Amino acid sequence: MRYRRHAMALIGAVLLSQPSLAGPETGAEAAIRAADLAWLRAYQAMDLKKSVDDVCAADCEVLAPNAPRAIGRAAIRDSFKSAFALPDMKIEWHPDEVHVAKSGEIGYSSGPYRMTWRDPKGKLVTDRGKYATIWRLEHGQWKVTLDMFNTDLPGQ
Amino acid sequence: MRYRRHAMALIGAVLLSQPSLAGPETGAEAAIRAADLAWLRAYQAMDLKKSVDDVCAADCEVLAPNAPRAIGRAAIRDSFKSAFALPDMKIEWHPDEVHVAKSGEIGYSSGPYRMTWRDPKGKLVTDRGKYATIWRLEHGQWKVTLDMFNTDLPGQ
Repeated sequence: MRYRRHAMALIGAVLLSQPSLAGPETGAEAAIRAADLAWLRAYQAMDLKKSVDDVCAADCEVLAPNAPRAIGRAAIRDSFKSAFALPDMKIEWHPDEVHVAKSGEIGYSSGPYRMTWRDPKGKLVTDRGKYATIWRLEHGQWKVTLDMFNTDLPGQ
Repeated sequence: MRYRRHAMALIGAVLLSQPSLAGPETGAEAAIRAADLAWLRAYQAMDLKKSVDDVCAADCEVLAPNAPRAIGRAAIRDSFKSAFALPDMKIEWHPDEVHVAKSGEIGYSSGPYRMTWRDPKGKLVTDRGKYATIWRLEHGQWKVTLDMFNTDLPGQ
């Protein structure tokens, strides 16, 4: 098992060393990674101004499961408010991947998320899934232009 | 009602005429739109070669609901095979939005989808939702590098 893990790590290292698949992180990629993690902290703090107004572009779209596309900050604020209202809501996500166009004004981050909350009976519910966020540079600041996520868990 | 619709169309036209939100479609945007629609036709024809090998980048990722991230063509082939195996499966999607970076090698398309199939009891099931696809230009051809979708319907 330990050997197999080691072999997988080696294969991973070889794949990552292929420039066509993933080169060294650029400054713009590091900036998107930082913006993604700052967004997580604002979301965890349930700060609507910092998680919507400060980071979402005016025409930003959030594509959440079990809901129509939320377009614009007012709709996104409503969507986030519902999540923030879940009892004991806790969330983590991580930008495992970041890519930016050569022109440096459009990029995306993607990775796993984990969210827990209490259902109406007080039982702790855990959801695990993945997300992709598309970012656009506006006046030197990375803004979210599209965000989407879905669960890894089997359907009911 | 007719008046309201007309007003909404006018508001839409004004929004679309704002260059900061959506300028005239560029050649690269038209190319991604065409690639997106060609992908739909290959998927509708349940052609694994044309819908996976010919259009998905080697490191392509499909982020489908209720499943872990499918990475690479073999995993995506398995994911598509499951969808193609659904009895009487029919699917439509439409790239309502297309954006491309100024450098012209990374872009994305997004829009609604509608999928129907028969459940094990033979009952017709309809799902409606939205998708986002990230495209990368490789040797002059637009390839899918990340594709994600989720349902608009309420959760069970």
